[in-house]
Amino acid sequence: MKKFINSIDDLVLDSAAGLVMAHEDLLRLHEEPLFIHRRVPKKDRVAVLSGGGSGHEPLHSGYVGFGMLDAACPGLVFTAPTPDQIVAAAQRVDAGRGVVLIVKNYAGDCASFQTAGDMLDMEHLTVLVNDDVAVENSTHTTGRRGVAGTVIVEKMVGAAAEAAADLYECKAVGDHVNANTASMGLAFSSCIVPDTGTPTFEIGPTEMEVGVGIHGEPGRYRRSVMQADDIVALLLEPVLKDLQFPASRQVLLHVNGFGGTPLIELHLLNKLATQRLQAEGFKVVRWLVGNHTTSLEMAGASLTLTALDDELLSLWDAPVTTPSMRW
Amino acid sequence: MKKFINSIDDLVLDSAAGLVMAHEDLLRLHEEPLFIHRRVPKKDRVAVLSGGGSGHEPLHSGYVGFGMLDAACPGLVFTAPTPDQIVAAAQRVDAGRGVVLIVKNYAGDCASFQTAGDMLDMEHLTVLVNDDVAVENSTHTTGRRGVAGTVIVEKMVGAAAEAAADLYECKAVGDHVNANTASMGLAFSSCIVPDTGTPTFEIGPTEMEVGVGIHGEPGRYRRSVMQADDIVALLLEPVLKDLQFPASRQVLLHVNGFGGTPLIELHLLNKLATQRLQAEGFKVVRWLVGNHTTSLEMAGASLTLTALDDELLSLWDAPVTTPSMRW
Repeated sequence: MKKFINSIDDLVLDSAAGLVMAHEDLLRLHEEPLFIHRRVPKKDRVAVLSGGGSGHEPLHSGYVGFGMLDAACPGLVFTAPTPDQIVAAAQRVDAGRGVVLIVKNYAGDCASFQTAGDMLDMEHLTVLVNDDVAVENSTHTTGRRGVAGTVIVEKMVGAAAEAAADLYECKAVGDHVNANTASMGLAFSSCIVPDTGTPTFEIGPTEMEVGVGIHGEPGRYRRSVMQADDIVALLLEPVLKDLQFPASRQVLLHVNGFGGTPLIELHLLNKLATQRLQAEGFKVVRWLVGNHTTSLEMAGASLTLTALDDELLSLWDAPVTTPSMRW
Repeated sequence: MKKFINSIDDLVLDSAAGLVMAHEDLLRLHEEPLFIHRRVPKKDRVAVLSGGGSGHEPLHSGYVGFGMLDAACPGLVFTAPTPDQIVAAAQRVDAGRGVVLIVKNYAGDCASFQTAGDMLDMEHLTVLVNDDVAVENSTHTTGRRGVAGTVIVEKMVGAAAEAAADLYECKAVGDHVNANTASMGLAFSSCIVPDTGTPTFEIGPTEMEVGVGIHGEPGRYRRSVMQADDIVALLLEPVLKDLQFPASRQVLLHVNGFGGTPLIELHLLNKLATQRLQAEGFKVVRWLVGNHTTSLEMAGASLTLTALDDELLSLWDAPVTTPSMRW
């Protein structure tokens, strides 16, 4: 296994420490139990907390900061955080207005956040993200998986909280974004989870896994590699079918890389997807292109659309200052 | 070859178009000849221009914007831009105060910028970047190669130009940064150049190429994979030997991924490198961690140090708004 790693036991903590060192103006590390939180706590605002397995960086810890998350709880690689991490983080960031928990729909994450929720002594509500249209149930999930749309939910809920929305309004924003967001991805290669040291799945030299999950779990089917134009059509079709919004609606397009695909290819996908959407009459008005919700070094990408209204557009445009998203 | 690609002929232009679409608030595309430039031109300031082979994204086009580059000229993958690109871009961005050309030290880039320089009818000066301490000469270079330190040169020269430094002062800043910057990297895997469709070099399942270049060109030697702590020591030793600054000096640490290495590993490297430097008495005061100067999807990373003084620190901290660097 060729990775920059000292010991599997220390990887998640040491990596979190390295992130916080690089952004000491924004972030603080809480080691035991592990979470990353804002250096300057919010006052009199709803706190926004997320977490999940490590290996998807920058999700979630790279989005802690002004206008997005107050804290992120990283689990072991592809493993949910423990309830005590979530409880300790919620206690740290609660400013008396309650806490929104943003949870990707995986069985492990749901169980940990549910258990933590039962232990929390402040008001809290959960936003469940399940934007992946690839499969209805999967290896790790009952119902649809939460994937790259999570970043969009976190951005918009974070902006609402910063603008003094109350707990129920923040929850409503999150549910509204999730309902208007759909994603579909594919992979050219598997990642290698450090714990196992071997590829999660085998894939032939000319195959791609369509509908792959962000842990390398199976999608819809395998097929031969296609050219990028055809891939874009293949990914957009189920996303548009799921959202079923009128072509007059403004949309945010998120081209997400899974970690091992370089920017030159992601920008190409963005050009092709934008042009295809425009040709069908959609108004693409905002873009996010890059490796945001990754699967370690997996090669592949997903396309996510969010149907915007005036509220969501203004939440997207609101200022944000985090390690991996700032404007 | 598994890549998101339509045709090799269109890749560079289409990818540049995709970048500009995603950042239409900041960037404009000039198609023929190809360059990317700032949407809002500078007035009465020195213009800063760079360029080089594609495949190193976000370098250079991702750094066009306020406080950094005025234009970037992407060549074909791992191929220098042509002189006509550079001339057209310089003419577009010159605001009457001259143009600084930031050039990575490769034979092809030097030749193209030299030819372009001979054709330019405005004042211009060149900053040559050669921060790579791995090898004195290489496959593509006479003298040391320009690698990840280029981003630091571009940031600081861009800040100086924005602050109304004249052409000679901008050139002096660039030379000063370059003289105080050193880098060393290694690779676990090769990238695949789309044109050839095969790995640039073969490497065994437990080998790493120490001192690798950003086109996958050979470095100093091969050896067996080591744990991250030992890799950090191996990379920092020649960097510190080259810079030979006193331990009391403040330093910027740049952990750069080559494209195929995930953030979880880069942050781990950052933690280990920072702690090692601190243990030797160095004051690490600024950090840049991420995939900035890449080699397509190559797995690997480099460590770069810049010895700071008050001027360089304030140039680093100056506001910047580009696709891939903003604060």
